[in-house]
Amino acid sequence: MKYSIGIDYGSLSGRCVLTRLSDGMIMASAVSVYKHAVMSDRLPSGTKLDQDWALQHPQDYLDVLSETIPAVIREAGTDPEDIVGIGIDFTSCTVLPLGKDGQPLCFAEPDNPHAYVKLWKHHAAQEEADLINSIAEKRGETFLKRYGGRISSEWLFPKLLQILREDEGTYSRIDCFIEACDWIVYVLSGSLTRNESATGYKAIWSRKDGFPSEDFLAALDERFRYAVRDKMKGRIVPIGTCVGRILPEMADKLGLSRNTAICSGHLDAACSLIGAGIKEPGNMLAVVGTSTCHMIIGRNEHEVPGMCGYVYGGMNPDAYGYEAGQSCVGDHFQWLEENCIPGEYFREASARDISIFQLLAEKAGAKKPGESGLVALDWWNGNRSILVDGQLSGMLLGCTLQTKVEDIYRALVEATAFGTRIIIDTFNANGVPVNAFYCSGGIARKDPFVMQIYADVLGMDVHVVEAKENAALSASILGAVAAGKAGGGYDDVYSAMENMAHRSRGVYAPNDRNHRVYDELYEEYKTLYDYFGRQNHAMRRLKHIAEQNRS
Amino acid sequence: MKYSIGIDYGSLSGRCVLTRLSDGMIMASAVSVYKHAVMSDRLPSGTKLDQDWALQHPQDYLDVLSETIPAVIREAGTDPEDIVGIGIDFTSCTVLPLGKDGQPLCFAEPDNPHAYVKLWKHHAAQEEADLINSIAEKRGETFLKRYGGRISSEWLFPKLLQILREDEGTYSRIDCFIEACDWIVYVLSGSLTRNESATGYKAIWSRKDGFPSEDFLAALDERFRYAVRDKMKGRIVPIGTCVGRILPEMADKLGLSRNTAICSGHLDAACSLIGAGIKEPGNMLAVVGTSTCHMIIGRNEHEVPGMCGYVYGGMNPDAYGYEAGQSCVGDHFQWLEENCIPGEYFREASARDISIFQLLAEKAGAKKPGESGLVALDWWNGNRSILVDGQLSGMLLGCTLQTKVEDIYRALVEATAFGTRIIIDTFNANGVPVNAFYCSGGIARKDPFVMQIYADVLGMDVHVVEAKENAALSASILGAVAAGKAGGGYDDVYSAMENMAHRSRGVYAPNDRNHRVYDELYEEYKTLYDYFGRQNHAMRRLKHIAEQNRS
Repeated sequence: MKYSIGIDYGSLSGRCVLTRLSDGMIMASAVSVYKHAVMSDRLPSGTKLDQDWALQHPQDYLDVLSETIPAVIREAGTDPEDIVGIGIDFTSCTVLPLGKDGQPLCFAEPDNPHAYVKLWKHHAAQEEADLINSIAEKRGETFLKRYGGRISSEWLFPKLLQILREDEGTYSRIDCFIEACDWIVYVLSGSLTRNESATGYKAIWSRKDGFPSEDFLAALDERFRYAVRDKMKGRIVPIGTCVGRILPEMADKLGLSRNTAICSGHLDAACSLIGAGIKEPGNMLAVVGTSTCHMIIGRNEHEVPGMCGYVYGGMNPDAYGYEAGQSCVGDHFQWLEENCIPGEYFREASARDISIFQLLAEKAGAKKPGESGLVALDWWNGNRSILVDGQLSGMLLGCTLQTKVEDIYRALVEATAFGTRIIIDTFNANGVPVNAFYCSGGIARKDPFVMQIYADVLGMDVHVVEAKENAALSASILGAVAAGKAGGGYDDVYSAMENMAHRSRGVYAPNDRNHRVYDELYEEYKTLYDYFGRQNHAMRRLKHIAEQNRS
Repeated sequence: MKYSIGIDYGSLSGRCVLTRLSDGMIMASAVSVYKHAVMSDRLPSGTKLDQDWALQHPQDYLDVLSETIPAVIREAGTDPEDIVGIGIDFTSCTVLPLGKDGQPLCFAEPDNPHAYVKLWKHHAAQEEADLINSIAEKRGETFLKRYGGRISSEWLFPKLLQILREDEGTYSRIDCFIEACDWIVYVLSGSLTRNESATGYKAIWSRKDGFPSEDFLAALDERFRYAVRDKMKGRIVPIGTCVGRILPEMADKLGLSRNTAICSGHLDAACSLIGAGIKEPGNMLAVVGTSTCHMIIGRNEHEVPGMCGYVYGGMNPDAYGYEAGQSCVGDHFQWLEENCIPGEYFREASARDISIFQLLAEKAGAKKPGESGLVALDWWNGNRSILVDGQLSGMLLGCTLQTKVEDIYRALVEATAFGTRIIIDTFNANGVPVNAFYCSGGIARKDPFVMQIYADVLGMDVHVVEAKENAALSASILGAVAAGKAGGGYDDVYSAMENMAHRSRGVYAPNDRNHRVYDELYEEYKTLYDYFGRQNHAMRRLKHIAEQNRS
C-alpha cells in the first residue's frame, strides 16, 4: 500500500491528512493551530498596526509541517517509505516577502510590519487596487476582462505596491514576493516555483499573456517598473507538477523518506474539485464557509461579468477554471450570533444541548418561505460576484414588530442563496452553463436547514460533498500525482481523482411549492440588488460618511 | 382653594390627577392598570380572536374611576366640595357599542367579540378601510382631503362597518357606537355627547360638512345607509364644554360632590397642547411614546399631504388643530430590546444598575453621527405621515460585520428623527410653518440621548414638556373649565391654561457639526423614503407574500 500526504493551510490552522492511494481513504489527520493567529492589531513586538491590516507569522506554517506530518505518520502507523508524495493547498492571496537569504523577511526584521505575511483578508491596499484599476482602465489593459473587470485589493500586486509606496526601504530588501503555498513547496523541496492557479487568479498572469507589462507597472509608479523581473522570480508550473524530491534535511526532520515527491502548490478553494471528483464542465462546486467560492470548469474561454477570474489550468488541468464568490456567507450567521441573539435563546440551546444555529433553524423552520416578509441583501462584507464592490453593505427589508431574530437568520440564509442564484444565472447567460450544483464545507455538511433553502431557492438538487477534509484530500491527491505511477502514485490528476476522490454525497431536492414562493422573493431580491448595486450608491456614500466621522 | 380632576385613559392603564386650580400644581395622582389589558388572542370566556384584533373590556375603565378618584382625594386630603370639575381624555379611536339598555353590549354578551371595545390598534378592519377609501375616491368625496387622502383602518367607520359585514345580528343590537372618552363622560354625567375633537379626527365629521352622507354610506353597503342616524346618536359638542353635573349616584359612589361639573371628552394626544400651555400657531408638540403624535395649531385651513387630519377646535378651541403621526417610535426600541439584545448587555446593565437603553445610549453615544454607516426606515409598524401606508415595513441599510446592536439602536432613533423632520418639512411647505418644536411623553422626559439626536437632526431647539402627567393635567384643566368661573373654575380654556399649564421646560440645542452630518444622512433617508414609499412597492408585496404563506 502506498500513501500520500496533503496539507490544507487555512486562515487559522493547517490540517494534514495521510491518504491511501488505492481508494483515497483518509488514514489519519492532524491539525496545528497557528500560534499567532491573525495579527490585525499589533505585531508580537507590540508595534501597532493600522486599520484593515491582517498579517500572519510564517513560523506558524513551518510548525504545521513539523507538528502534523509526524503526527499523521504516527497515528496511521505508516512506514515513511510508503508515503510517496506531498501536496499543499493554501488560502490565497496570502503572500510574503523573502529576503536575499531566501528566508521570510520578518525572521530578520521582526519589528517591521511589511516584512510579515499579508493574509488574504489584509484590506489595507485598497488605494493601490484602486490605482491599478483606474490606470488599467485608462490604458485599456485587456487583463481586466479576465477578472470581471476589477482587481481586488486582496491580490498580490496591490499588496506588493503597498509595500513600495509605504516603505521603499523594505521593498528594496525583498528578493522574492511569493504566495505562501509556493513558499511551503520551496521550503520542502528547495525548488522555487509559482503554481499557475495562484499566479493566474491572484497575480494577473495567464499562459497566453504572462504578467502585466513593465510599462503598465511603471505607469502605477516608476519605481514599480521592474516589479515582475525583480520580485516575482520562480518558475511558473501547472498544478500537479512534481517540483522535485524533498530536501534531505527536511525529510529527516519530518520523519519522511528522502524519496518523497513534492507537488506544486494549489489554492484551497480551487483544488476542491479534485477531492470531490468533479471533472465535467457544467458542474459547479460551492465551498460554503465564512465566505463562498463558486467554481466551475469550462472547456472554452468566456467573459462572465463580475466573476473573480478564470484561469486555464487553474482548477483541474487542461480546462478553464472559472471562479466566482460571495464575500460573506457564514460570516453573516456568525455576526448575528455574536451581536443579536437574546440571552434566552442561548439558555434554551444550552439546556437542550443543541447549537444556537440548530435552535434558530428549528424556530425559523417552523415557518414557511415568505412568511416572515423579510428580504435581505447579503452584503455585510461587500459583494464579490457579480458586482465586485467591497463598498456595498448589508440591508434588511420588511421588518415589523413581529419580526423575530430567527426570521432575520432565515432571511440572511435566503439572501446568500439568492446571491448564489444570481451567480448561476450569470454563468448560464454567458456561455458557461451550470447543470449541477455541489456544495462542500462545514455548512454544507452540517446544516440541512441551510442546504434545503439553497435547493428550494435554486430549484436544483444540491449535492453535498461529504469529505470533511476535502481540501486536504485534494492536496494529497496532488501528492500522489507528484510521485507518478513509477513512484507508486499516478501519472496525471484525472486518473488519481478516478481512484481517490470521494464521490459519495447526500442530495437535497428542491420542494416545488417552496421554490415557487422563492421565485417571487427572488424577483424582489434582484430588483434591490440592481437598485443598490447599480443605481442608488447610498451604501458607498454611507461608508464614506462613516470614514469621515470615525472617532 | 379649588381643585379639579383629570383622568387620562391610556392603552394599558388609566391615570388620574388632582390639580390645584390656582397654579396647576398636581396634588395627587393614582394609576389603575386594566385587568384585561389588551385582548388580542382570546376573550375572557376563552373564545379565540382572529389575527389583528385588539379588544378591551369597558369594566376596566369603570374600575379606573372607582379606584383612582377616591385614591387621589384621600392622598391629597381634599374636601370633595372643593373639587369643582372632572375632565377626561382617552386613547382614540377606541370605540364601543352600547345596547338598548345604554350599557356596553359586552356586559350582556360576554362571549361575543364584536360586543367589546375595539382599541385604537385593532387592525382587523383594513378591508373596510380600503373599501371606504376606494369608494370615497371614486365618488370624489371631499372629506378625504381633511385626512391626508386616506381613512385609517383604526378609525370609527371602518370598525363599525366591520361589525355589520361580519355579524349583522350584533350590528342590529347596537343602539350607539361611541368613543370610550364620550362613554365615560356619559357614565359620569348621564349626558350623551360626542366631542368635536374625536368626532372630527376619527369619525369623518366637520363643523362645516357634518358626517358622510347617507348615499356614501349606502354605497359602501346598502345596510349601512342609516349608520349615522341609527348608531351615532349624541349631541356633538366642542372641547371644554360642560355637559352637566355628575350623576348623584356616581358622586356618592366616588366620594365626590354632587355639584361636580363634567367636561366633554378629549383625545389624549390632541389635548396635550393645553397642559403644555401651547397656544400660538407655529408651535409643534410631539408626544413621543410607543408611537408619536405631532400636533400644531393653525389659524387657517390648509391641505397638508399625508397628515392624519385637521379639525377646527380639535386641539385648542377656535383654531385648526393639525395632526400628523409616526406609527412606530418607542415601539422600535422596545422591539430591539425584546428581540436583538445579547445576554451580556443585560448582564452589564444589571451589574451597573442602569437600564438597557441607558447602556445602549452610552455605547452608541461614544460614536459620532454617521460613524456606524447605518440608515434605517422607521416603518416597523407602517408609516402614518406622510405616506399613510400601513403596509410599509422597516428597513435597515449599511450593515457590516462590525455593526453592533447599539449602532442599530442609534439608527432606529435617528430614523424616527428623520421621519419627524419630513413631517415638519411637509408642514412648512404647505402653509403651516413650524417655528418651534416641543416634545412630551416618557421618552422626551427621560432620554437625553434620543432628544439630543432629535435636536441635531432637526437643527432646531427641542423644548421638553416636563409634566410627567401632561395629558391628565390637560384633562384636569378641562375639568376646571367645565366648572366655569362662577363654579370656582375658569370660563374658557385659554384663561385656564394661563394659570394651570406647566410651562417650565428643558431645552436641547442642536450641535452644528452633528447637524451637518445629519443633513447628509437625511438626504439618503429621503431618497429611500421616496423609493420604498412611492416607487418600489416591495414592502407591500412582501406583506402580501407573507399573508399568503402564513402557517
